[in-house]
Amino acid sequence: MNIQTLKGFRDFLPEEARKRQYVINTLKSVFTLYGFDPLETPTLEYEEILTGKYGEEGEKLMYRFEDNGGRRVAMRYDQTVPLARVAAQYQGTLPTPFKRYQIQPVWRAENTQRGRFREFLQCDIDTVSSSSSSADAEILAVVSSALEKLGFTNYRLLINDRSVFGDLPIEAIITIDKLKKVGEEKVKEELKSRGIDPTALDKVKNTQLPSSISEIKSLAIKMGVPEDTLVFEPTLARGLDYYTGIIIEVEIDGYTVGSVGGGGRYDNLIGMFAGKQIPSVGFAFGFDRILDAMDEKNLFPDIIESTKVLITSFNPDMLNESTELAAKLRKQNISTELWLDSSSKMDKQLKYADQKKIPFVIILGPNEAKENVVMLKNLKTREQQKLSLDDAIVLLHP
Amino acid sequence: MNIQTLKGFRDFLPEEARKRQYVINTLKSVFTLYGFDPLETPTLEYEEILTGKYGEEGEKLMYRFEDNGGRRVAMRYDQTVPLARVAAQYQGTLPTPFKRYQIQPVWRAENTQRGRFREFLQCDIDTVSSSSSSADAEILAVVSSALEKLGFTNYRLLINDRSVFGDLPIEAIITIDKLKKVGEEKVKEELKSRGIDPTALDKVKNTQLPSSISEIKSLAIKMGVPEDTLVFEPTLARGLDYYTGIIIEVEIDGYTVGSVGGGGRYDNLIGMFAGKQIPSVGFAFGFDRILDAMDEKNLFPDIIESTKVLITSFNPDMLNESTELAAKLRKQNISTELWLDSSSKMDKQLKYADQKKIPFVIILGPNEAKENVVMLKNLKTREQQKLSLDDAIVLLHP
Repeated sequence: MNIQTLKGFRDFLPEEARKRQYVINTLKSVFTLYGFDPLETPTLEYEEILTGKYGEEGEKLMYRFEDNGGRRVAMRYDQTVPLARVAAQYQGTLPTPFKRYQIQPVWRAENTQRGRFREFLQCDIDTVSSSSSSADAEILAVVSSALEKLGFTNYRLLINDRSVFGDLPIEAIITIDKLKKVGEEKVKEELKSRGIDPTALDKVKNTQLPSSISEIKSLAIKMGVPEDTLVFEPTLARGLDYYTGIIIEVEIDGYTVGSVGGGGRYDNLIGMFAGKQIPSVGFAFGFDRILDAMDEKNLFPDIIESTKVLITSFNPDMLNESTELAAKLRKQNISTELWLDSSSKMDKQLKYADQKKIPFVIILGPNEAKENVVMLKNLKTREQQKLSLDDAIVLLHP
Repeated sequence: MNIQTLKGFRDFLPEEARKRQYVINTLKSVFTLYGFDPLETPTLEYEEILTGKYGEEGEKLMYRFEDNGGRRVAMRYDQTVPLARVAAQYQGTLPTPFKRYQIQPVWRAENTQRGRFREFLQCDIDTVSSSSSSADAEILAVVSSALEKLGFTNYRLLINDRSVFGDLPIEAIITIDKLKKVGEEKVKEELKSRGIDPTALDKVKNTQLPSSISEIKSLAIKMGVPEDTLVFEPTLARGLDYYTGIIIEVEIDGYTVGSVGGGGRYDNLIGMFAGKQIPSVGFAFGFDRILDAMDEKNLFPDIIESTKVLITSFNPDMLNESTELAAKLRKQNISTELWLDSSSKMDKQLKYADQKKIPFVIILGPNEAKENVVMLKNLKTREQQKLSLDDAIVLLHP
C-alpha cells in the first residue's frame, strides 16, 4: 500500500498549521472589528445547487458523486453559491444587510502541475443586501486593515468600475484586462484579431475617474484607508463578467507571483436562488498567496512558537517536582511542556526543544530543588541562569 | 429546484458559528498551554488508507467515490487513521513524542433519524510515541483544564485500565460496559445468555485500583486535576477493543445526554502504517455535546456578541462624520458597525442592532456634532446619554 497524501492535497504539519492559524485569527479579528459575522456552510451540497454556476471549466473541476442514499452531491467549489443559497433559504431570518465572513476549504480538481492544489482555503467577506457606496468603501477598508494588521506596508488596492468598459463586448474586456501581463502592443493586436477597433484600449486607459469610484474612494479614505494605496486602474476587469460596479484587486509591492485577493460589486449573483436582485459586494483573500507573501517578507512573528518552555526530566526521582512545576507555570498561563519520559538523557530532551523551536528549557535537579531555584536555559543564546520560580515566571511570561 | 441544506448536514448561522469558534478557541488555548501542536490533514485520502480500519459498520458509513482522475478516494472518517498515516509518512521528521491536536470535520453517512449528523467536528489530542504514565496523566490534565476553562464545575473523569478485564472475551467486556445504562440484573442476564459466568461482573466491579492507574492518578493530581473528579470505574470499556491501558470517559453532572468525550491508551493503533508499535494515548472531545451542555448550563459568555456598537446614520448630511467616527472607534479596537445606507429610518437601524444583539448604538446628529459629543444608547437598558468621544471609548472598550 502507498502511504501518502492524496495527489494535489496537503498535510499541514505544526509549523505550517500555526502560520495558517495566525493568518486566520488575524483576518477574523479584523472582520469582527468591522461587524462581519461568521458563517459556515456544509462541505456537501445537493449537486443541482452547484451545477451551472461555474461555467464549463468549473463543471469539470467539481468534485461530485452519488452518496449512499442515491443523492447526487457536490463538494463546496466556492463560498459564493452557498452564500446565495443561505440568502434564499433564510430570507426574513438574516439581518439586512447581512455582513458575513466565511473561511472554509473548497475543492477543485485542478491540474496540479501548475502548482495548484485541489483543496485550499477561501477567505471571503461579503455584504449582502446593500447597494450603498459605504458598503463598497467598507470592503476596501477591511482589506486595507487586514493587510496592515498582517504586517504588509506597501500594497495597492487597484480599483475600477464596470461602467468604464461601457458596452464593449466581453472578449474586448478580457483582452484589455491582460494589459499588465502582455503589454499594450499585444493587447492591440489581439483586439484587432478579434475584429475590435484597437483604439478601444486607449479610450479605456484614458477614462476619467468615474464619480461612483470617486465617492467610494473618498469614503474609504475617511474609513482610514491610506489615500496613496487606492489606485484607479481603468483596464482592470479580473477576467470576469459578473461585476456590476466596483472591481478590486490587491497587489503587494515586490511580491510578483500575483494578486493576493480580489472582489467587487456583483448585484446579480446572490439573488440567483431567491428569485430577486440582492445587491452585494465582496472580497476574497488569496489565503495561500498571503502566506507565501508573508513568508517572503518575513512577516510571521516569533510568537507563533507554540510552547514557551520545556521542563526537562533530570532523573526519575525528580518526577514529582517537575510535574508540580509544570502545573505552576501553566497556572500562570505560560505554555509549558513537561518531558514525559523520566529516564531520557538530557541531550535528547534539549534536541527535542530545539526541533520544536521551544525558546527556553528548565532544568530542575536535586541541587536546584534544595536551593529552591530552577536553572533556566535560553536555547537561542545557550546561556543559562539560576532563578527563583517567581523570577522565572516573570521572564517567561507571555 | 429545492433550495435546501443537504440532508444530515448543517449551516451554522452567525450566532451558532460564534459559539463554535468560542469553544474551538478555548480548547486550542488549553492544548497550546500543554505543548500540543496543531495538525491538519486533507479532507480526501486514498481509499485504501481508510478501508479496513473502521469495521463493517464504518465501511458502510464512509463517503467514498472515484475522482475525476479515476482514483478511489474517501472523505475523512476520523482523525486517528490520518494521524497514523502522518506518523508513518513523516517518520524521522516529526518530533518524538509527537503531541498534536486536530480539529477538523469528519463525514459519516449516519442514520439522521437518531439525531446524528453526517458532518461533524472532531477535536482530538494525542501523544504519539510515548508509553509513560506522565503522558496518560497529561491527557487527564488537559481534559480537566479544558472543561474548567469552558466553565464546567461539576464533571467526572471516569478512568479504568484494560487489564481490569483480564482475559474476558470481548463480548463479556461489551456486556459489562453496559452496566450504567441497563443495570446489574440485565448485564448478568446477558452474560448468562452468552454462556459467561455472571459473577464475572462482580469480579470486575470489585477490582482494586490497579497500580498503573494509581500512578497516573497521582501524577494527574500533581498536574492540577482535582482529586475528587478522578473516579475509578472498573466496568468502563467504551465499547471498544483497541485500548491497551487507561480508558477515559468524561461526564458532566446534570447533563444526561451522554459523555462529552473519551479516550485512552491504544498502543497498537498508530503504528498500523509504520510497521512497528507506536505507543500512544489520546482523547476526543465530543464537540456537539460540549456545545449542547454549555447551552444547557448557560456557560456561553456575553462577550461572543460580535459587534460592540452600531453607529447609526442620522441623515445623508452626517455621512462623513459618522464614517470618521467609525474609523476612530475601530482604531481603539472597538468592534464597530457603521450603518451603510445613509437614508434609512432610525427605527430600522435600531431593529437591526437588536436582531444582531449589538449592545450599544451611537446616534450622531447635527446637534451632537456641534456640541462635539455622541449620543450613546444602551440597547439592553434602553437608556441613553450624551458623552464626549473619549468617554464613549472608555465605556465601549473591550
